[in-house]
Amino acid sequence: MIHHLFLPVLGNEILSRLEDQASCSLRPHAEATLAFTTDSFVVRPIFFPGGDIGKLAVYGTVNDLAMGGATPLFLSAAFILEEGLPIDDLRRVVVSMREACDAAAVTLVTGDTKVVDRGKGDQIFITTSGVGFVPAGRSLSAASCRAGDRIILSGTIGDHGIAIMSVRENLEFETTLESDTAALADLTRVMLEVCPGIRCMRDPTRGGVSSALHEIAAASHVGMSLSETAIPVRAEVSGACEILGLDPLYVANEGKLIAIVPRDEADRVIEVMRAHPLGARAAVVGEVVDEHRGMVVMRSRVGGERVVTMLAGEQLPRIC
Amino acid sequence: MIHHLFLPVLGNEILSRLEDQASCSLRPHAEATLAFTTDSFVVRPIFFPGGDIGKLAVYGTVNDLAMGGATPLFLSAAFILEEGLPIDDLRRVVVSMREACDAAAVTLVTGDTKVVDRGKGDQIFITTSGVGFVPAGRSLSAASCRAGDRIILSGTIGDHGIAIMSVRENLEFETTLESDTAALADLTRVMLEVCPGIRCMRDPTRGGVSSALHEIAAASHVGMSLSETAIPVRAEVSGACEILGLDPLYVANEGKLIAIVPRDEADRVIEVMRAHPLGARAAVVGEVVDEHRGMVVMRSRVGGERVVTMLAGEQLPRIC
Repeated sequence: MIHHLFLPVLGNEILSRLEDQASCSLRPHAEATLAFTTDSFVVRPIFFPGGDIGKLAVYGTVNDLAMGGATPLFLSAAFILEEGLPIDDLRRVVVSMREACDAAAVTLVTGDTKVVDRGKGDQIFITTSGVGFVPAGRSLSAASCRAGDRIILSGTIGDHGIAIMSVRENLEFETTLESDTAALADLTRVMLEVCPGIRCMRDPTRGGVSSALHEIAAASHVGMSLSETAIPVRAEVSGACEILGLDPLYVANEGKLIAIVPRDEADRVIEVMRAHPLGARAAVVGEVVDEHRGMVVMRSRVGGERVVTMLAGEQLPRIC
Repeated sequence: MIHHLFLPVLGNEILSRLEDQASCSLRPHAEATLAFTTDSFVVRPIFFPGGDIGKLAVYGTVNDLAMGGATPLFLSAAFILEEGLPIDDLRRVVVSMREACDAAAVTLVTGDTKVVDRGKGDQIFITTSGVGFVPAGRSLSAASCRAGDRIILSGTIGDHGIAIMSVRENLEFETTLESDTAALADLTRVMLEVCPGIRCMRDPTRGGVSSALHEIAAASHVGMSLSETAIPVRAEVSGACEILGLDPLYVANEGKLIAIVPRDEADRVIEVMRAHPLGARAAVVGEVVDEHRGMVVMRSRVGGERVVTMLAGEQLPRIC
């Protein structure tokens, strides 16, 4: 839909880059670049272990800014409420957004509310937009990766998607599996401090790690080679994925990032990530290669290789 | 809801001003101020005489920026689509947005799309956010109006709301009544050129002229005195309002503005407005007074005065 409908009609130099955030050069402010992003959140259920739609809406947009190397500053929030939504539910979401803004050090500066008739919405939809600034000289891009670069993952994958599914499907685990929803801007800040040359970063949300790596592989005309044993996955997530017939590589994350980093700087980046609460389980999970361009290939536990295919649609609907 | 739920929880210096747009001072960019706004559009039907939800979503957000004296620059758009929406309808909306962006000289730089199951949305909802810059030294505020200031209206009122209602209620007019949806940024530009001291501007959308004037009256601790004969209303709109039991003062507009202007500068402002296609019927419709503070009073055709009360809810649901 993006390539066949939106881009041909709406495309322009900035939109067509298809980065998670728009970086708008402001001629009168030549030293820095404005970053601007938007996302609608329609997650179901609106409350889930580890978070809720409000927290997700704040962190999701903050993370889209952070992935571009921006310092997130200002947020907007637009609510579409279904008639009959209990006011206490709305309050709980709004309180959660406030806490999330404080935790992420962003200011929600403008908003809007619309109410639609019962049966024309689903409790609450939230669209957040975010504005931030990218320091002069910093330029992260999915198109800048080269063979030899290391693929870094900040922690376990699939937690968010499986937390949502476990509520929907009434799965029982020995411990409650929680969404990983978190603001990544402080983590990216310390990473960029030690390694200003990070090629690009992505938060693997809808479509998971697989989609994010496919995007980067296509943009940089490189291949991605992953090592299955290096990818951190919680036992509960592996178990749930087996039951549900899902592959953790496709499951959404809301507090994790992928960074493509020049080979010689990977150790330094991993070190500062592991010292940060949101990167404690950071690991090099693979490398960028000249072979199988545009593709993602995984070396399995037993030594074989398999192509990680790109999913056409969404594996899990309404996950964020 | 804003005062009892959102502000107590989310309030901060900028959000609490309750301007239509957030003006964010950027310390490293001290010369100018970033303007940032958001609105969700849930209008029903999505196509109506004179426009559609896409055009409305672009112009509505452009106008929110323009009312703050900003030059609109960048837009984001987030779509929540109901499963089963005909692709041709979506395409028509997207094409219309492109045309609207071109007409308004803004660039749509980022976006998002979510799909919700059938019966959990209503065809298409669009949330647009906008970013612009307010030149250094310019500061429009609803709190800055003083007794003696003139109230200027840029043209006929009620066109948008009645165009929507006429489709919904199947009203027949001799001529098709069209929505006035339009981008007002070029009109505000010429107005501010001749009168940099305009106190404040508002586009009277939901809640109409009445709501906008009540907001300003409250913020400036002044009264608003309107002259019924001076307010331009199309005959079809008057007629439809009578049939539907509506007061044009409460009906939504999408291409009109109210400006509060120092008395001695009103003539000059009216002159440039009338020379502009979107201000051809601009008129002084009243003045700011020291009496009946916080209230809006209308001198009627026959010389009497009546208080224009503030509506508690929305007179017309899903008008934008």
